[in-house]
Amino acid sequence: MTSMASTIKEVFAEIAAPVENSHGKVTVVGVGQVGMACAYSILQQNLANELCLVDVVADKLKGEMMDLQHGLAFTRHCTVKADTDYSITAGSKLCVVTAGARQREGETRLSLVQRNVEIFKGIIPQLVKYSPDTCILVVSNPVDVLTYVTWKLSGLPRERVFGSGTNLDSARFRFLLSEKLNIAPSSCHGWIIGEHGDSSVAVWSGVNVAGVTLHEIKPDIGEKTDNEHWEAEIHKKVVDSAYEIIKLKGYTSWAIGLSVAKIAQGIFSNSRNVFALSTNVKGFHGINDDVYLSLPVVLGSAGLTHVVKQQLTEAEVQKLHNSAKALLEVQNGIVM
Amino acid sequence: MTSMASTIKEVFAEIAAPVENSHGKVTVVGVGQVGMACAYSILQQNLANELCLVDVVADKLKGEMMDLQHGLAFTRHCTVKADTDYSITAGSKLCVVTAGARQREGETRLSLVQRNVEIFKGIIPQLVKYSPDTCILVVSNPVDVLTYVTWKLSGLPRERVFGSGTNLDSARFRFLLSEKLNIAPSSCHGWIIGEHGDSSVAVWSGVNVAGVTLHEIKPDIGEKTDNEHWEAEIHKKVVDSAYEIIKLKGYTSWAIGLSVAKIAQGIFSNSRNVFALSTNVKGFHGINDDVYLSLPVVLGSAGLTHVVKQQLTEAEVQKLHNSAKALLEVQNGIVM
Amino acid sequence: MTSMASTIKEVFAEIAAPVENSHGKVTVVGVGQVGMACAYSILQQNLANELCLVDVVADKLKGEMMDLQHGLAFTRHCTVKADTDYSITAGSKLCVVTAGARQREGETRLSLVQRNVEIFKGIIPQLVKYSPDTCILVVSNPVDVLTYVTWKLSGLPRERVFGSGTNLDSARFRFLLSEKLNIAPSSCHGWIIGEHGDSSVAVWSGVNVAGVTLHEIKPDIGEKTDNEHWEAEIHKKVVDSAYEIIKLKGYTSWAIGLSVAKIAQGIFSNSRNVFALSTNVKGFHGINDDVYLSLPVVLGSAGLTHVVKQQLTEAEVQKLHNSAKALLEVQNGIVM
Amino acid sequence: MTSMASTIKEVFAEIAAPVENSHGKVTVVGVGQVGMACAYSILQQNLANELCLVDVVADKLKGEMMDLQHGLAFTRHCTVKADTDYSITAGSKLCVVTAGARQREGETRLSLVQRNVEIFKGIIPQLVKYSPDTCILVVSNPVDVLTYVTWKLSGLPRERVFGSGTNLDSARFRFLLSEKLNIAPSSCHGWIIGEHGDSSVAVWSGVNVAGVTLHEIKPDIGEKTDNEHWEAEIHKKVVDSAYEIIKLKGYTSWAIGLSVAKIAQGIFSNSRNVFALSTNVKGFHGINDDVYLSLPVVLGSAGLTHVVKQQLTEAEVQKLHNSAKALLEVQNGIVM
Repeated sequence: MTSMASTIKEVFAEIAAPVENSHGKVTVVGVGQVGMACAYSILQQNLANELCLVDVVADKLKGEMMDLQHGLAFTRHCTVKADTDYSITAGSKLCVVTAGARQREGETRLSLVQRNVEIFKGIIPQLVKYSPDTCILVVSNPVDVLTYVTWKLSGLPRERVFGSGTNLDSARFRFLLSEKLNIAPSSCHGWIIGEHGDSSVAVWSGVNVAGVTLHEIKPDIGEKTDNEHWEAEIHKKVVDSAYEIIKLKGYTSWAIGLSVAKIAQGIFSNSRNVFALSTNVKGFHGINDDVYLSLPVVLGSAGLTHVVKQQLTEAEVQKLHNSAKALLEVQNGIVM
Repeated sequence: MTSMASTIKEVFAEIAAPVENSHGKVTVVGVGQVGMACAYSILQQNLANELCLVDVVADKLKGEMMDLQHGLAFTRHCTVKADTDYSITAGSKLCVVTAGARQREGETRLSLVQRNVEIFKGIIPQLVKYSPDTCILVVSNPVDVLTYVTWKLSGLPRERVFGSGTNLDSARFRFLLSEKLNIAPSSCHGWIIGEHGDSSVAVWSGVNVAGVTLHEIKPDIGEKTDNEHWEAEIHKKVVDSAYEIIKLKGYTSWAIGLSVAKIAQGIFSNSRNVFALSTNVKGFHGINDDVYLSLPVVLGSAGLTHVVKQQLTEAEVQKLHNSAKALLEVQNGIVM
Repeated sequence: MTSMASTIKEVFAEIAAPVENSHGKVTVVGVGQVGMACAYSILQQNLANELCLVDVVADKLKGEMMDLQHGLAFTRHCTVKADTDYSITAGSKLCVVTAGARQREGETRLSLVQRNVEIFKGIIPQLVKYSPDTCILVVSNPVDVLTYVTWKLSGLPRERVFGSGTNLDSARFRFLLSEKLNIAPSSCHGWIIGEHGDSSVAVWSGVNVAGVTLHEIKPDIGEKTDNEHWEAEIHKKVVDSAYEIIKLKGYTSWAIGLSVAKIAQGIFSNSRNVFALSTNVKGFHGINDDVYLSLPVVLGSAGLTHVVKQQLTEAEVQKLHNSAKALLEVQNGIVM
Repeated sequence: MTSMASTIKEVFAEIAAPVENSHGKVTVVGVGQVGMACAYSILQQNLANELCLVDVVADKLKGEMMDLQHGLAFTRHCTVKADTDYSITAGSKLCVVTAGARQREGETRLSLVQRNVEIFKGIIPQLVKYSPDTCILVVSNPVDVLTYVTWKLSGLPRERVFGSGTNLDSARFRFLLSEKLNIAPSSCHGWIIGEHGDSSVAVWSGVNVAGVTLHEIKPDIGEKTDNEHWEAEIHKKVVDSAYEIIKLKGYTSWAIGLSVAKIAQGIFSNSRNVFALSTNVKGFHGINDDVYLSLPVVLGSAGLTHVVKQQLTEAEVQKLHNSAKALLEVQNGIVM
């Protein structure tokens, strides 16, 4: 920079030194397809004024940073940084964790989780060290148990550690509903809760359009007796679609990126919107252990503040208990 | 709220108390047509997460607050508050001052300024008391001298007090250019500097499209010898248009609202864009007094950081000096 | 423009003639406080690429046009035009009608309506003449009967004529709910239907957060026996608030502007969202006459396509019938 | 859908049939990293109300479509479709072509071009068949010669076929300038023209901040004698950065996606902004052949309307001629 200093000095007279301003700072850990879709969405939606990327693969990391930076002439302002060293993340308001190992063929779930625990041991304490007031949003899978792991490793209060959970499953559910009903997804209201993935629970009792619950019209909607097969036609497709996309394109990225951006927006604007996020469900629906599952929660700038208490059927509660039990077993097998 | 508490308690389980988050807080002082156009623009463009209105007329103030609040279901999140008491403004990052007296028939300019000084004595110290780290953007007219007054009354460093100045004149200039050239206003680059109003200066030497300066094509553009009359066809219309709009609709509001929103965006995103704002020009273009005129400045989250040093012609510098001299005379007549 | 042609020709070489592109064209009739809040919102939210203003007061009209135009350097692209002659509106996709007389002291409602009918006779046929494929959104009050009048005067199919109706009442309802529940308005779901104003109906059975209806928790919510007084604390305040704002600031403008912008967005993006709009309710809830009341409707680029059939209580249906009867009486007294 | 019809019928009463609305329709051909970054950006920025993806790899195509669709609950409205058959693209207003072969090791440039010509023969006539009024934006590399090929294959007028060209190079240039000058990229004005890639030309004479050209301060800026080395420090880095990113992450995607979205926005809003796009330069700067190079052009809803005539130095013109000559040689070797 020195070489051009004299011309630059002829153009600009300094009145006061520029400042860095970290109040709108986001860190994304992991620059794979998911991490970059999150970063690109956060950048395009003008949610942050500083975006930090961290990964262990320095080359890829630098390439992704440069590629985002070259787009800055087309966006509102954001500073984009990247480093393998966590010191650049200092003062983050939100850390999005997308790093993690993928399942090897024949590997048990517990083995995968344990490998990711080892990875998270190198990430989470670093994040908290540099940003003690941050919220941490876990995206890596299996998201529920890794959110629990993050909570434990971070030492942060439960309201500041949460997982992207079934926010995406709920979006898929609304999209599939919108196709059936031929209206906008944003006018289709429905919630998927519980474990992100196969054992998620569609809360049919609350599915509604303009406050008209489908349950009023079709009382057994979503149940086995339902001769219109809403559960099979909608919820099962939600569960299957993640697998299908992975089979078709190898991974999922775009929708999770938009999901994370929406959650980030909720935090940065302190909007107090309701999201289905993975949270410590101890004390809810009869669960008495520290396990993480998705429930509708109110999200503000300092993390979760409330859980929305849904009136679940016995069958729905049972499914949550089954998930909780399975997660607890995995948790008990983890060496931290 | 107590009356509904039991139902609400059945729906929400508290995990952590909600927090207020003032890092994106804007105060608008004065809820006349200009102040409300500013507030409405800031709200619609999702620039702030808290918006405070202050005025002395409590009824009007409450009505405007309610009217904005009723639109919150249609915007991203923002908390809207209003009070005659400045304590609600605590922690503002930006205070926009639009309050002020209008010129009475036959009143001298100095008399008008003095009446506004008295009004500002009731505003500025209150703003600084509750938000010692705020930037203050002065919009009230005559904007240049009132920005000087605000600087003096506030005790703030010069980089944190500035006036909307010729940011609007420059926008009008670009719009009129865009009509002549039949291209987008955002692709027409040109700057109006100096005093906001009659004696403003169009810097013709820098007017360009895609880096092609009109001056290259038409060397006497904007000068008396210019047989195409660009100064009369464009700049004079800029000067006249404020008068014309006031004659036609009684006041100007929409464009100044958008101008202020753009400046606010620059501050909140710490974007370091260049704006034509009224600033203390002591030390620039041979001016040696503390007077406020518009020059292109770099704006960040803590206020101005640099002045862009334009290469002005002798005639342009002379106009600035004339404005500075006239403003100094007014300033010397003020009792503070 | 001729005078500058030679310089301009030196800068630009024409490849093909520019075209006007009217597919995103909006007309706003009436440039009072409501009309201008609508226009300003549509401009700021980048919903249209051409915005036409029409009014009978040429001076005010020109002033408002110029004031919007001067802000175009701060927005995405939009062409802003204004004229007292309707020919500029040709090819509009949406016409927003905000013109109309205000109630005189002691004037009967029918007399007011009749005066507005006369005004609409000068507006509606002109709009349809120049834009035979347009949708017409009526905002002027009393909105329900004037939407009926517009439908009759226009000769358009019922799906292309609708009133802003209780879309705003619903927004006010959600805002007041959000204050009680301390969550975002956009996470508070509730619908006000029926007549815009005093006799509107809050459909308590559908009020919900994340699919949890308050009705599940508090079965008599909104009814007379409700010891928490939700109807009085929320819905009554919705009804009163319009009066209160008018008393406080003289008119309402900002929230209706945002409401209209949201409806316009639904049309331009063909989004098929559900809105509470004033529509011909013949055939719904036992009403057998051509009267206009608000119900939840699905809105696309060619107007309404569906009415959402709510399960109303007997009391709610009765209120709709009362409104329908009163409106029918007014309609029968109109001379068209 | 039949299975659920009876419940759906209970909720919705049809007033009029829904319509498709293709006026804001974009097709992206090729769902590789570049095509998907374009699609994702267009979706997030709410530029289109229908987005069609076309590719020959049906599985990948379906996976990408589903992944975007699952994000629709988080965006404004857009319909997302995908097929290997071009009939879904009917009525597109803009077709973005990102398909193409990559260079094999040791392959000559002409051989690569010829392979892409064969691919384009399967794409371009199909696009024009279904959307005779479309604009075609070519993104595939080598972009300049492939834009020429597209123009020839399409039979469209020259204003409706253009390449993304140096719009991205210019953005990289502004970003690197912004880092040196420590101001926002959007306040750094500078243009890269000519061939996209190694032989691009930085037009130093027009580089400016607020109309202050660096050339005024440093007359030999960008030339060999420049002791501050602006050409080496800025423009050379622009040229090198594409190679560097490809080396680091394997491809470039995010910045080109944002570049294409910006161009699409210009078309859909008919904004008449100036972009550096690859166009037929016959007749400009002494070039007399039908070759495609980037120059600043004015873009509207029906394509390019004007070229901005820059005052280039002799050396700059010479570089353009060299590029034109090299491109012509390649063109002459193509079998179409």
